[in-house]
Amino acid sequence: MANQTGRSFGSDNHAGVHPSVLAAIAAANEGDAVAYGQDDGSQAAVRKLCDAAGARAAYLVFNGTAANLLGLSFLLRPYEAVICADTSHLNVDECGAAERLLGCKLLPVPTPDGKLTPELIETRLTGLGDEHRAQPRVVQIAQVTEVGTCYTLAELDQISEYCRANGLRIYVDGARLANAAAFLDCSLADIASRVDVLSFGGTKNGALGVEAVLVMADGLDDGGPYQRKQLLQLASKMRFLAAQVSALLDQDLWLANARHANTMAQRLAAEVIGVDGIQLAYPVESNGVFAEIGERQATLLQRDWNFHVWAQTSPGRCVVRWMTAYDSTAEQVDALASAVKESGSFT
Amino acid sequence: MANQTGRSFGSDNHAGVHPSVLAAIAAANEGDAVAYGQDDGSQAAVRKLCDAAGARAAYLVFNGTAANLLGLSFLLRPYEAVICADTSHLNVDECGAAERLLGCKLLPVPTPDGKLTPELIETRLTGLGDEHRAQPRVVQIAQVTEVGTCYTLAELDQISEYCRANGLRIYVDGARLANAAAFLDCSLADIASRVDVLSFGGTKNGALGVEAVLVMADGLDDGGPYQRKQLLQLASKMRFLAAQVSALLDQDLWLANARHANTMAQRLAAEVIGVDGIQLAYPVESNGVFAEIGERQATLLQRDWNFHVWAQTSPGRCVVRWMTAYDSTAEQVDALASAVKESGSFT
Amino acid sequence: MANQTGRSFGSDNHAGVHPSVLAAIAAANEGDAVAYGQDDGSQAAVRKLCDAAGARAAYLVFNGTAANLLGLSFLLRPYEAVICADTSHLNVDECGAAERLLGCKLLPVPTPDGKLTPELIETRLTGLGDEHRAQPRVVQIAQVTEVGTCYTLAELDQISEYCRANGLRIYVDGARLANAAAFLDCSLADIASRVDVLSFGGTKNGALGVEAVLVMADGLDDGGPYQRKQLLQLASKMRFLAAQVSALLDQDLWLANARHANTMAQRLAAEVIGVDGIQLAYPVESNGVFAEIGERQATLLQRDWNFHVWAQTSPGRCVVRWMTAYDSTAEQVDALASAVKESGSFT
Amino acid sequence: MANQTGRSFGSDNHAGVHPSVLAAIAAANEGDAVAYGQDDGSQAAVRKLCDAAGARAAYLVFNGTAANLLGLSFLLRPYEAVICADTSHLNVDECGAAERLLGCKLLPVPTPDGKLTPELIETRLTGLGDEHRAQPRVVQIAQVTEVGTCYTLAELDQISEYCRANGLRIYVDGARLANAAAFLDCSLADIASRVDVLSFGGTKNGALGVEAVLVMADGLDDGGPYQRKQLLQLASKMRFLAAQVSALLDQDLWLANARHANTMAQRLAAEVIGVDGIQLAYPVESNGVFAEIGERQATLLQRDWNFHVWAQTSPGRCVVRWMTAYDSTAEQVDALASAVKESGSFT
Repeated sequence: MANQTGRSFGSDNHAGVHPSVLAAIAAANEGDAVAYGQDDGSQAAVRKLCDAAGARAAYLVFNGTAANLLGLSFLLRPYEAVICADTSHLNVDECGAAERLLGCKLLPVPTPDGKLTPELIETRLTGLGDEHRAQPRVVQIAQVTEVGTCYTLAELDQISEYCRANGLRIYVDGARLANAAAFLDCSLADIASRVDVLSFGGTKNGALGVEAVLVMADGLDDGGPYQRKQLLQLASKMRFLAAQVSALLDQDLWLANARHANTMAQRLAAEVIGVDGIQLAYPVESNGVFAEIGERQATLLQRDWNFHVWAQTSPGRCVVRWMTAYDSTAEQVDALASAVKESGSFT
Repeated sequence: MANQTGRSFGSDNHAGVHPSVLAAIAAANEGDAVAYGQDDGSQAAVRKLCDAAGARAAYLVFNGTAANLLGLSFLLRPYEAVICADTSHLNVDECGAAERLLGCKLLPVPTPDGKLTPELIETRLTGLGDEHRAQPRVVQIAQVTEVGTCYTLAELDQISEYCRANGLRIYVDGARLANAAAFLDCSLADIASRVDVLSFGGTKNGALGVEAVLVMADGLDDGGPYQRKQLLQLASKMRFLAAQVSALLDQDLWLANARHANTMAQRLAAEVIGVDGIQLAYPVESNGVFAEIGERQATLLQRDWNFHVWAQTSPGRCVVRWMTAYDSTAEQVDALASAVKESGSFT
Repeated sequence: MANQTGRSFGSDNHAGVHPSVLAAIAAANEGDAVAYGQDDGSQAAVRKLCDAAGARAAYLVFNGTAANLLGLSFLLRPYEAVICADTSHLNVDECGAAERLLGCKLLPVPTPDGKLTPELIETRLTGLGDEHRAQPRVVQIAQVTEVGTCYTLAELDQISEYCRANGLRIYVDGARLANAAAFLDCSLADIASRVDVLSFGGTKNGALGVEAVLVMADGLDDGGPYQRKQLLQLASKMRFLAAQVSALLDQDLWLANARHANTMAQRLAAEVIGVDGIQLAYPVESNGVFAEIGERQATLLQRDWNFHVWAQTSPGRCVVRWMTAYDSTAEQVDALASAVKESGSFT
Repeated sequence: MANQTGRSFGSDNHAGVHPSVLAAIAAANEGDAVAYGQDDGSQAAVRKLCDAAGARAAYLVFNGTAANLLGLSFLLRPYEAVICADTSHLNVDECGAAERLLGCKLLPVPTPDGKLTPELIETRLTGLGDEHRAQPRVVQIAQVTEVGTCYTLAELDQISEYCRANGLRIYVDGARLANAAAFLDCSLADIASRVDVLSFGGTKNGALGVEAVLVMADGLDDGGPYQRKQLLQLASKMRFLAAQVSALLDQDLWLANARHANTMAQRLAAEVIGVDGIQLAYPVESNGVFAEIGERQATLLQRDWNFHVWAQTSPGRCVVRWMTAYDSTAEQVDALASAVKESGSFT
């Protein structure tokens, strides 16, 4: 059951850079280029991205937390609050960056599946107009969510309509937006057009390190360039961030990458779920398999395989997260599946 | 006088990536690697950097403004202030990031040459112990300064001694630290050992985009990993930042790059200064030539050549900045020099 | 059932200023006095307060939210988080001031009675040492809690011991600390000695407007005077804040005031609980009665009587809050009790 | 030359509370009142203040630094900067509160007399539209300035016109606005109508402690109540702040107080200037006398008299500040004047 594949299922950011992206970086390394995104290559990448998503503006940044912070900075005044799932990366895994850098209050909501609904959002709309309360202003959702689920377009419509009716803006953490589009079999614009500001993650999709903040209407990003600079996200040699974005957009490489990762997750789930009392914790709607297994089995598997124990569920049971990436192979997935099955027989 | 070289003298960040750095990135793209700097390659790069500078800890970040902010975040409590040159990048070119992200007050001091001295620092030490005043705590200097000058080691000693005697910490913006070490013909450690926290710039030295914050004593970076994460500087695929650092450190590539750039600046200065009434505005102690020329001449030259007009000095006269890079060639420098001379005869 | 008493049960801050406090303000208005707390009267008040609570330092501020913010500012670095009850004033009623002014993350915990326990605190101690998580550092409790309950000294001991063992600090929101001491029949020092930093509320106890932050050990308030100034709490004519504090401390007026208010709440509870299906929502341990009643009855009563509906509990049922103050009279309480009984017969 | 008058010339906030203000506070202490400014008395005070100044909204706060911060919070986004005199209280004496609480950058300008002009403002309008620079947005002036000078209405018109033409807002620190109106012999509205947001100081005018932020156009204070709460300035027993404001406005007590203080400063200046080589450092346009005298003389005088040494000017010479208040008497002023003359003969 040892992992001789070298593959980590710990995170899709354990994968390296897609060869086409690396080639694009090398190709961008021709001669001098003006800095800070004023070069032709950077402007072309931003244009392509706006075209793909139907966005009015796009800002390239270094990582996903930064994308979230920059996107939210556009939408918030200092006394306004963000409604989000309590499992959101924003709330759990960004070390309080939202509170420190934006000074905003998060209003986290427990959810069954990482997804907000109008009903769940409404639970946090108390205190509107009360000067003692931070005022809810942005609904933050993740697409794909942190537990691998996706909002359907119909669900996005419901949230969108609810938010419009209640004076709320929608920000989408799209660190895995590509995987959502692949799962939903829709375009980036299909998702983007339903929200106000969103991020589009390149890093987990095969980039070296680039994310974009997409702004869906004029005026929503007032002060955008200044906020990007202040939030430490203005790259001097921007052409190399832009090259990554262009490479992912060319011939829809982003989509192919996401589809492949999703397919690998489906393959893994098909192999292991139901065997040995292993159960899905959440539906597999992207490139992650969240499975409930025995803790001893999880520990045994972790000797050879890299993956996270996500949560303890009951005594002796836990949820594990197995992530696939754009370059996971069927052999690697099958090797993990075999190991899972084998480990079950030991425990 | 047209620029057929393709070379920009606008900034050393207009240059691309050194081939060895690009090769190192490609080489790091082998298989999976755990994220956030826990991989062997990242840890090796940090170790090498600490060894080279005699540092106790090093944090890789995305850009120079971020390095400054992270470094200062280690040293400041919210009611403390930073004494800096009024021409400092921190004060002028970081869009108020220090004020926004750290909430600190800057106490800028006019200087003749971009360099602070104990006497200049002392002018801002009023109000110590007065609860109505932000308390000076950090002296921020740039090595190389924003006008291309370098502190000698003796000058650093004086500042260091003064700061120690007055309970002040020293932070160095080392976006061009390599150029300073090359100019002073000293090691990184020779500079670093005289201060508390400093940055080491890779980007202008031939990297794709990486800077490091070096911490010279235990305990100075309390909370360091959290602050890096909060300040949006924790790269998931850290191995690719680390690869750049390693490539620059291997066989002292950083030093060769800096020496070359400095030599090109000296070559340019030797050619143009004194001709046609062109005068040095500041001594050439790194990879920039700051020259006072006529405004009409500057405008004429800018038609074909990319460089900044730094400041107006008197009616019709201005200071221009010509930056060289690790890959500037003698031919390119000579072409600019010829253009400068030629333009002088037109104006 | 009309309220002809003029009494509000809406909040203890609807009451005016105790005559002795007003007299003390007038008495302090003799001649000139140096500003910002350097006058004898201010220093005497701080000394008296420190003596009463066994504190090492005390800072007078304008209101309760400010006291909470200043107290927490002493204990937190920017990447640290505060564990608190989800019903805490800090989390609910301070408009996100903690997030905006301190940049800290709150980790709210649901509780049955507004009170934290070691077990509840432990649920938020995940992610220690994980750079992606804000690090829990302060346990914030209210004594009296926002639902009128008090921690016993034994409960405080348990929390104190748990926090010490886990490297956590304790901050107490003591907006109604006097009422807690009165209920527990203990000294201020008995409570204060069990925690690190706490506020002592004067305003609800009969002052015009003053609160104090008490610091229980040397070094816990590093930068204290600067933080008070920065947080906009340094009064120029400090003598008038100090006079209020001195008046409340003289002959334990604070205690008499709190005892009286508590007694009035007990009187009210004794009259109305059990009648007409009215039930206590929380035990009456201070100067507030939290009772579950019918919504129609609440609405009817609110026509004439000022009090808050605290929460909806089930369809048609809600919790109301009736607050008594240092100057509530038995007649006023009895009038409300009669109105409550009468309203029950209408609904 | 001993000071047997008990009078401090250290600051106008060394004075106590005007008897009418104290009486108004006592009168407001009748029965219960709803908190946070919803009571009739608070609303009436705000209305009176708006009427007096022609303002659209007014917010009562606790002190002058808070008024400045709240006023600026209305006008700034996080990437915007404030142009101010380098001697401004905001820049010098607020412990960096603007930087910490608003995250904004201050752009201080040296001035000859504490007053900005369009020409001086223009020196800081570099970098407009440059994403590396915090964007100048607010011009902050003090009326009275920190050195006792006043802008004429014509000067305010010039600044106002310049700001309007350049997309800048004007905020006025009016800690001594009453003294300016008295000096200029104009109404509050005459000054207020020329700017966007301003403070009106009560404390130095005879209040116990209250300042107001006046907003001159609808929409300029978006989020005003929330920002006041977040900035720790929402008084629960607001009626007692309101009573002070009402008392000062009734029968123009504020104006009588300011006139008297100004007259006393003129009296002092008339007595001492020109004698013994004592020279005015700034024209006497309010209630402060800034005089250049010998350092030894200043030291001698300070044995018995409380006043500040403002600045050293040349070896052995310094500027001292003598402040008068609403209740300074001619006898007290004359006593100081005699002491000044006498001390001159000793030194």
